[in-house]
Amino acid sequence: MLGNLYDIANLDLDSEQFSDLIAGSNVRIERIVSNGQASPPGFWYDQDVAEWVLILAGSAGLSFEGEAEVKVLTPGDHLLIPARRKHRVEWTDRSAATIWLAVHFS
Amino acid sequence: MLGNLYDIANLDLDSEQFSDLIAGSNVRIERIVSNGQASPPGFWYDQDVAEWVLILAGSAGLSFEGEAEVKVLTPGDHLLIPARRKHRVEWTDRSAATIWLAVHFS
Repeated sequence: MLGNLYDIANLDLDSEQFSDLIAGSNVRIERIVSNGQASPPGFWYDQDVAEWVLILAGSAGLSFEGEAEVKVLTPGDHLLIPARRKHRVEWTDRSAATIWLAVHFS
Repeated sequence: MLGNLYDIANLDLDSEQFSDLIAGSNVRIERIVSNGQASPPGFWYDQDVAEWVLILAGSAGLSFEGEAEVKVLTPGDHLLIPARRKHRVEWTDRSAATIWLAVHFS
């Protein structure tokens, strides 16, 4: 019942790792562990539901369509990505794991 | 749009501090900052909705009705409190702020 989000010892970090912590009908809480991955060139996420993200470790650069500035997220930073707001991950930390918490909700 | 959950510089920590980050119809995401507070003796939370909690800083002891053991939570620890599962906060860290993330959902 009790887990720790910083526990990544058994993960294969050659690929991005996604795990659902809560999967309900109205909300999904997910941990994502990145290790230098980024969205493919030209790719934009375009999601049906809202997503609130929080960085727990590492760092990441997020872009939103129509905004020139890349938002740099470090531990404790959080933001809301409204449904249908196109966004992409420009980069994640290459020197250490980036641990995200994502809460998807409608 | 971008905030940091560790930013507590402007909070009055003489009392427990609650702030909603997201208040939707199906989900509420809340930051709680404690500074040694605990549930009153004999008090049990008994909630209509489920609550997923994560400790971001500090530490806390949580009890569940019918369980002798107090669960000790430190940063990164998370657990699900199902709706109607009676629980109480036995203690929070007296030497540093305890920052909780709580996701309430039905």
